[in-house]
Amino acid sequence: MLNIAIIGAGRIGHVHAKTIASHPKARLALVCDPFGDAAEKLAGEYGARSCKEAEDVFTDPEVDAVVIGSPTPLHIPHLLAAARAGKAVLCEKPIALDMKDVIAAQAELDAITTPVMFGFNRRFDPNFAAVRTAVLNGRIGELEQLTIISRDPAAPPVEYIAVSGGIFRDMTIHDFDTARFFLGDIVEVFAAGQNLDPEIEKTGDFDAAVVTLRAASGAVATIINNRHCASGYDQRLEASGREGALFAENVRPTTVRLSNGEVTDAQEPYLDFFLERYADAYRIELSEFIEAVESASPTPTTIADAVEALRLAEAATESATTGKPVRLA
Amino acid sequence: MLNIAIIGAGRIGHVHAKTIASHPKARLALVCDPFGDAAEKLAGEYGARSCKEAEDVFTDPEVDAVVIGSPTPLHIPHLLAAARAGKAVLCEKPIALDMKDVIAAQAELDAITTPVMFGFNRRFDPNFAAVRTAVLNGRIGELEQLTIISRDPAAPPVEYIAVSGGIFRDMTIHDFDTARFFLGDIVEVFAAGQNLDPEIEKTGDFDAAVVTLRAASGAVATIINNRHCASGYDQRLEASGREGALFAENVRPTTVRLSNGEVTDAQEPYLDFFLERYADAYRIELSEFIEAVESASPTPTTIADAVEALRLAEAATESATTGKPVRLA
Amino acid sequence: MLNIAIIGAGRIGHVHAKTIASHPKARLALVCDPFGDAAEKLAGEYGARSCKEAEDVFTDPEVDAVVIGSPTPLHIPHLLAAARAGKAVLCEKPIALDMKDVIAAQAELDAITTPVMFGFNRRFDPNFAAVRTAVLNGRIGELEQLTIISRDPAAPPVEYIAVSGGIFRDMTIHDFDTARFFLGDIVEVFAAGQNLDPEIEKTGDFDAAVVTLRAASGAVATIINNRHCASGYDQRLEASGREGALFAENVRPTTVRLSNGEVTDAQEPYLDFFLERYADAYRIELSEFIEAVESASPTPTTIADAVEALRLAEAATESATTGKPVRLA
Amino acid sequence: MLNIAIIGAGRIGHVHAKTIASHPKARLALVCDPFGDAAEKLAGEYGARSCKEAEDVFTDPEVDAVVIGSPTPLHIPHLLAAARAGKAVLCEKPIALDMKDVIAAQAELDAITTPVMFGFNRRFDPNFAAVRTAVLNGRIGELEQLTIISRDPAAPPVEYIAVSGGIFRDMTIHDFDTARFFLGDIVEVFAAGQNLDPEIEKTGDFDAAVVTLRAASGAVATIINNRHCASGYDQRLEASGREGALFAENVRPTTVRLSNGEVTDAQEPYLDFFLERYADAYRIELSEFIEAVESASPTPTTIADAVEALRLAEAATESATTGKPVRLA
Repeated sequence: MLNIAIIGAGRIGHVHAKTIASHPKARLALVCDPFGDAAEKLAGEYGARSCKEAEDVFTDPEVDAVVIGSPTPLHIPHLLAAARAGKAVLCEKPIALDMKDVIAAQAELDAITTPVMFGFNRRFDPNFAAVRTAVLNGRIGELEQLTIISRDPAAPPVEYIAVSGGIFRDMTIHDFDTARFFLGDIVEVFAAGQNLDPEIEKTGDFDAAVVTLRAASGAVATIINNRHCASGYDQRLEASGREGALFAENVRPTTVRLSNGEVTDAQEPYLDFFLERYADAYRIELSEFIEAVESASPTPTTIADAVEALRLAEAATESATTGKPVRLA
Repeated sequence: MLNIAIIGAGRIGHVHAKTIASHPKARLALVCDPFGDAAEKLAGEYGARSCKEAEDVFTDPEVDAVVIGSPTPLHIPHLLAAARAGKAVLCEKPIALDMKDVIAAQAELDAITTPVMFGFNRRFDPNFAAVRTAVLNGRIGELEQLTIISRDPAAPPVEYIAVSGGIFRDMTIHDFDTARFFLGDIVEVFAAGQNLDPEIEKTGDFDAAVVTLRAASGAVATIINNRHCASGYDQRLEASGREGALFAENVRPTTVRLSNGEVTDAQEPYLDFFLERYADAYRIELSEFIEAVESASPTPTTIADAVEALRLAEAATESATTGKPVRLA
Repeated sequence: MLNIAIIGAGRIGHVHAKTIASHPKARLALVCDPFGDAAEKLAGEYGARSCKEAEDVFTDPEVDAVVIGSPTPLHIPHLLAAARAGKAVLCEKPIALDMKDVIAAQAELDAITTPVMFGFNRRFDPNFAAVRTAVLNGRIGELEQLTIISRDPAAPPVEYIAVSGGIFRDMTIHDFDTARFFLGDIVEVFAAGQNLDPEIEKTGDFDAAVVTLRAASGAVATIINNRHCASGYDQRLEASGREGALFAENVRPTTVRLSNGEVTDAQEPYLDFFLERYADAYRIELSEFIEAVESASPTPTTIADAVEALRLAEAATESATTGKPVRLA
Repeated sequence: MLNIAIIGAGRIGHVHAKTIASHPKARLALVCDPFGDAAEKLAGEYGARSCKEAEDVFTDPEVDAVVIGSPTPLHIPHLLAAARAGKAVLCEKPIALDMKDVIAAQAELDAITTPVMFGFNRRFDPNFAAVRTAVLNGRIGELEQLTIISRDPAAPPVEYIAVSGGIFRDMTIHDFDTARFFLGDIVEVFAAGQNLDPEIEKTGDFDAAVVTLRAASGAVATIINNRHCASGYDQRLEASGREGALFAENVRPTTVRLSNGEVTDAQEPYLDFFLERYADAYRIELSEFIEAVESASPTPTTIADAVEALRLAEAATESATTGKPVRLA
């Protein structure tokens, strides 16, 4: 049984609290949030303790592991403090909004020996994971072209976007990790940003983008993003190889289809957002984290993954801004 | 090049005229219809001659083959006359409305040596034919259960229904042939007729039915019929065997799918009716007829098939009327 | 929090134990099974107590509700005893193997006032339930034809079949309930049994069947059953109405599709059996049971449902044996 | 009735000959090819005359229209000669391998007043055309992202590739036209070429590519190409708009699906290549050409379309070679 604390009682904190509470090997011990009664309320739902200072989490002897869902600028300080205190860490993405912050902390990050995993939840989605396993098992021969379609049902508030670090760090970061999950090292990034929503354009950010990634292997990945999708949370993946192709289709609430005079075999809108769409993924992510901690084996995602995803996000931001592809070392 | 005459310039006559006109090995020579200028008009569309008396077809030396699309009570007289005149015959279903008419003509029917084929067009549908070929090739092991779903987009006029011989002779006759095409001899028929439309009920006919057929092999076929279907002409087939199953799905005009806030991956309504849905089937049917005639080989469907389908229709009519299953010799 | 006891530590007992253990409002208090250490073992997995005598369940003051998963001949004795003891009951199907047993206990059954629900789990399947809700909401107009396809992945051992009461009481019973769930009162049953497996034939039972049910409304339901299906647990439903149709398709482990030189857009085999396929249904069934008990409102399924499903199973058995349809009062 | 001559009796010449021969308003009058007996043979199949010199086509008084399927470097000379002779022209793509050739002939091209149409057959594919019509009808709101997946079943011989002008002029040219068909003017091109096949790499050409096109409207199109696809001729299109999305899926020979212990609902490989896949498109293309000629109305595709597609192909070639995006005036 792993006693887990959560830092950050926001939307993602609630996701993790629920997942932890229903996991047979985990116990929600402590919830920390500095604002109002957010921590107290969330903790109360699951019979956990609460606190307002992150420091109280790191010094809590009962806490074995910390899930970091604090604002992104606090990710590095929090994970370093947790690691110093000997806690295992499951940290949300992205690691930081700026690679400079990573570089500044590089020596300390490199020295961490406690388990630190990053919440790239899509790696644990049973659909995407099954595709990758099949690729690794040679079901489609050498992987040549990967297409990731990732559209949110609706854009977050403009206030959120303004401090999000931009679409590539905030949204595409997941898809960058997925591309790396399938293709390994990326050597070139070209991003075409789109301004479809004038309100978002005013913040200086894009609200849609198409990114081309060239892998060291010669494979090319295409990421198609949009902050808005009328049909729900559009999350698909297509892996095309020399001997076949694999598709991870969208997930619907049921298998029901409707036929009438207008449409036939019509399915329902996609599951609306990440909590529903990736519920299984969050559960499996936590299981793998706990298993890695308990067996003292490597976590399935690492700081290196978080850094590389951020590097791609920075490259995409540069590419979309300058209009030129960016080559990576 | 086969010179073909059509008897009957109604709906099915038009289908055959078009198919013949566009077939590279066929020529529409003559169209015969006693009513008004129907024959003249249809013939005119394709540069063929026309006549009003069927006798003029049988005596026409240019005519090699006759397609019989006259009213059902004339099928046997016309096919016997055509055969006596040495013409090859492609006759529409059903062979007759009453088995008594078949029995009365049995001796003459048995003596026919010219090619006589019956228009069970669905045997030539590429989808159904592909399923059958796969079954025969052992792709699903021994065939255990066959499900045929066959619904028309809308009922014909009540006047037509009143003289149609009833749903089983007029509509299900195709499905009986399909069942025999897959399963061979049928030994038991149980039919549950439905009266969903009060106007049709007044004619004494059913407008929907579910028929259970037991084959000599032990396999069971289910036929689900309805004179009405909101989504179009619903024509499906499911062959379930020991080692797998095959499905022939509906046909749509295009492969286009639509997603929005209401539906996702919605396809178009099914092709509306038999002319569109079975256009390929009519073309292939004609090709196989021509090939059989020209090569003097057996036609793919025969009078025996027509008689057996009628026998099943009579059994189903009896079963639906008496409420009891009917065993066949 | 409802303290629940399970009687019967067999396969279905394990399903319920797991569902209870993970339900936020339920607690597994006691497991009862007379054979070996079955009860002890299952109880041990979830920290519950165990006993060997059913009587000990009924007299246990801590037990609020009893889930009856004992052999079918004990269902009525157990549910009467539990009800007499004031326990709420969730009983597995069928209520009995013989209507005579129901009739013998009728007076006592009629007098039960504690909540008694029957485990017709498919009513709680989100796919089937969504179809029914859409039907009730008028999405497809008047329901005309219902098609239920229900095939198990593989037949149970012949020993089980020999005491199962036959395919209609053991397997089709679920589909009878589904038909009633959609269509209400059934007035006629015709069943065509099939003997595809000679080992099962020796037990005197069928291993496949097609059943036609006529509802009082005039709608007709078709049930297609097979004890064996190469593709997995084949559980589908098609509701065809005047203005449209709804389909509940099979469930697969993921949304992944494969294309190669042999197949395209190929999906995975269906979830293999009821535990996986109806995991959500068992969870929702338990929730609705708990909610009914706690709110003292009617249970969603009742003894009357169990009796009616058995009546249909008896009628189908008679029909398949005599070869004649059976009319119900 | 339009009397049509074909120049070039190669693969595409055969496609057009067959389409012309079966068109009710067209007649194949003449086939021209300088090599061996190619023209004579093809003409013989359809009862047409043949010649070896293109000049003989242009001076033939019986010829109303010329289909140009000669090698690409002859497209401009042939279409100018045909136009000077007052013939209507249906010319294959691309207009030329080098924009310099277009510029050199610009004055003459601009002066053509006879109907000249270009064979961008995919515009006439019923699936793609239905998507576009739906987009124009506002079914998905403003078009934001277009994804074109276009993979050939197998690469042509290396000898062909060596003189093809490269993947962008030879293969992607169709997709560039499709992008323009949906999005109009393109202002930026970024192409990532791939060398998956070492034999093709030796010719200096790519055998796969991902191209990003930015439209003047702000929409972005992605083209994913591969000279090889294990599952057949992979031809799909996805139009994603503000209020929904439309998908044109691949075409299979039948609607048959297979389920067994390995796969479920598996469909057949895609129609293998352009002749089969775009048979309807070639037929409709010819019909629209004939209709435009006969009604003296504008052809649905023009020299301007051919020039713009070539411009995009040149930009993509430059982008893939230099690694930089190319902006168009």
